[in-house]
Amino acid sequence: MAHIRLNTHPSQGGQAAPPIIWGARDPKLRGPVVGTVGDPAKRNAIGVHSGSYGIYRALAIAAQELKPDHRPDFTNTSPAEPIGPFESWFDPKKIVSLDPWGHMVAEVFADKLAAGWDIRPTIAVTKAHVNMPEIMDAMAAGRLKPDNDILSGSGDVKVTKAAIEPVWWLPGIAERFGVREVDLRRTLFEQTGGMYTELVTRPDLELFLPPIGGSTIYFFGDVSKLGKPDTKIACRLHDECNGSDVFGSDICTCRPYLAHGIEICIEMAQKGGVGVVIYNRKEGRALGEVTKFLVYNARKRQPGGDSAAQYFNRTECVAGVQDMRLQELMPDVFHWLGIARIDRFASMSNMKSDALREQGIEIVEQVAIPDELIPADAQVEMDAKKAAGYFTSKKPETAELAKAKGRGLNE
Amino acid sequence: MAHIRLNTHPSQGGQAAPPIIWGARDPKLRGPVVGTVGDPAKRNAIGVHSGSYGIYRALAIAAQELKPDHRPDFTNTSPAEPIGPFESWFDPKKIVSLDPWGHMVAEVFADKLAAGWDIRPTIAVTKAHVNMPEIMDAMAAGRLKPDNDILSGSGDVKVTKAAIEPVWWLPGIAERFGVREVDLRRTLFEQTGGMYTELVTRPDLELFLPPIGGSTIYFFGDVSKLGKPDTKIACRLHDECNGSDVFGSDICTCRPYLAHGIEICIEMAQKGGVGVVIYNRKEGRALGEVTKFLVYNARKRQPGGDSAAQYFNRTECVAGVQDMRLQELMPDVFHWLGIARIDRFASMSNMKSDALREQGIEIVEQVAIPDELIPADAQVEMDAKKAAGYFTSKKPETAELAKAKGRGLNE
Repeated sequence: MAHIRLNTHPSQGGQAAPPIIWGARDPKLRGPVVGTVGDPAKRNAIGVHSGSYGIYRALAIAAQELKPDHRPDFTNTSPAEPIGPFESWFDPKKIVSLDPWGHMVAEVFADKLAAGWDIRPTIAVTKAHVNMPEIMDAMAAGRLKPDNDILSGSGDVKVTKAAIEPVWWLPGIAERFGVREVDLRRTLFEQTGGMYTELVTRPDLELFLPPIGGSTIYFFGDVSKLGKPDTKIACRLHDECNGSDVFGSDICTCRPYLAHGIEICIEMAQKGGVGVVIYNRKEGRALGEVTKFLVYNARKRQPGGDSAAQYFNRTECVAGVQDMRLQELMPDVFHWLGIARIDRFASMSNMKSDALREQGIEIVEQVAIPDELIPADAQVEMDAKKAAGYFTSKKPETAELAKAKGRGLNE
Repeated sequence: MAHIRLNTHPSQGGQAAPPIIWGARDPKLRGPVVGTVGDPAKRNAIGVHSGSYGIYRALAIAAQELKPDHRPDFTNTSPAEPIGPFESWFDPKKIVSLDPWGHMVAEVFADKLAAGWDIRPTIAVTKAHVNMPEIMDAMAAGRLKPDNDILSGSGDVKVTKAAIEPVWWLPGIAERFGVREVDLRRTLFEQTGGMYTELVTRPDLELFLPPIGGSTIYFFGDVSKLGKPDTKIACRLHDECNGSDVFGSDICTCRPYLAHGIEICIEMAQKGGVGVVIYNRKEGRALGEVTKFLVYNARKRQPGGDSAAQYFNRTECVAGVQDMRLQELMPDVFHWLGIARIDRFASMSNMKSDALREQGIEIVEQVAIPDELIPADAQVEMDAKKAAGYFTSKKPETAELAKAKGRGLNE
């Protein structure tokens, strides 16, 4: 059996990693993201593809269910709709956490693939029909009307959708957070308990494929209108909440807001604009669900009951921060889509709107969730967020915040 | 600034990691899982807590939003319902991918926590009310009746729920897959592009906290009845499918089957049993959503159209395997819950039922999804799975499998 190589170094093998000129206009000059483990000389990224599912791939090889040298056959997999390139792809500071060419690798790197390079897409674009009961409700209430194209009378909605895996260009990530790249690399290495020595030994490798979840985008309307300044855009920017999104838990407004955002996106598409729903895998404010459930218990059991005044404190006691979503990276996807202006933004979050404006994306109208869509037990969250800076026409009074409005744990 | 330590070794510092005797009856003898980065001498696990959200934690520290020395305050966070210990916790071969004491660390390791050890829960148990439109439909159709306790007339369902982060005991994982531990460790290291040198340098560290998603369990009925042989159990074992579970995409039966499973769980709880829905983060058969969307395109565009006969082939061409969920580890959660028999199992998957039986869990009745709940475009998937071994009363004919039943990509 071959020697195990614990750490790699830039000089090793006398061959430099294939260069990346992030933001270069010509994709051949920009160079492909190569996260292969089968061909070390061509590798120019730390980590492997598929986000956290890269661990399942390794386990499948260990279990002898997958051959380590399998190369994907990309026949018929190309994007169902073209997206880009847009001018925003060529400013290396605008997109730092995804590869804008990620869906087009089979096309723009066809010569390298033919020469045997193991290059993989980090984005895929397909089409689907979706059907959510809330859309039927919106039709029944007369808020939406079927058009037999985008929205059928049975509630089927035609969408284009894109899945995106994270690709971090480390110099850009460091600059976005205002820290030195060397400190970013060292902290990522040390605070993950030593994940990827290459973060510190390979400053020549500027790309990192982190083992985290990515994003999914649902498009409503004509995707070819993206990138045109006169196209009106509606948007819901949604961070995963499995308990509400899937199971309809009533402690938060996540699924109601998602459904409301989709309603607004369908409406915009019917008027000739494009609706964009962005779904980010950041469960429990990126603290994960174990922390989220611990906080639920602490909120419901605290002396005085579950109140808006203590809402953020309880998270901070357990997690050390109120929120770990780091919205600084989130605007990248808008630059990928050539969106510089959101006409109708279905979100009240000041963290999201501030982060978008910081990256030069204009928000024309921020659309609040209608009161009748807020579950009773979620009023604590809404009051706390409004007091903390959420977009609202009426900030709650201090006395209101101190009231226990959430159910007790055993109710 | 301190020297960066690239690799660690067992002899280092002259102090051995706190021992783990996996499966030991006394939790103090078993020992705590310690995934801290703040106190290396007490660390006995490779990796960090929170699954893939550990990377967000590291990034938050790099961005100077979180102090690296923050210790959680666990006041009021203890489980909303007790679970275990059960006899199955004390067979080290029965549970290898989670820590059965994970929700009880503040109780069973109280002395070590008081002495300053950084021990964190890997499981949290809370309570919630959930509400899904499909449950209202089931009441309207007369299949479910409100009881004003578990199920209210407005469709609110009372649940207990648990979030579980993965904790891998590497000797047990290796044995489960029938491979040598040294080979498992090396393959996990090399095939992730060098994630965690400790996988190979630290054979003394038997625990690994992999950066992958975990599981959520929804309980219907009285949780204290778990572990009693006469308690009837209904179960839906569900692998994440964001497109269907959240957005209601009609290409598969995921959300319809989940809702049907919940219906069966509510029914069982109303009859005095316990319903258990297990939700595993294994998107797109643990291949991830980018691969899933590439496969959708290949299925819809192939000559002859989207047919059951080609269903699994298209996945294998892209991913190298038909499935990467590795159901071998999935039964652990049943042993954690003291469940040795599932009376009503809402799943047709032979991969799931085979894996459960292999681990000694009896399945009394396998409940198929009613035909009227299958979306038209999902018929391709259903036919393919039935032909491949899914539980069904009528296997499809070969001629039937060759028919293109799925929509074209642009329909």
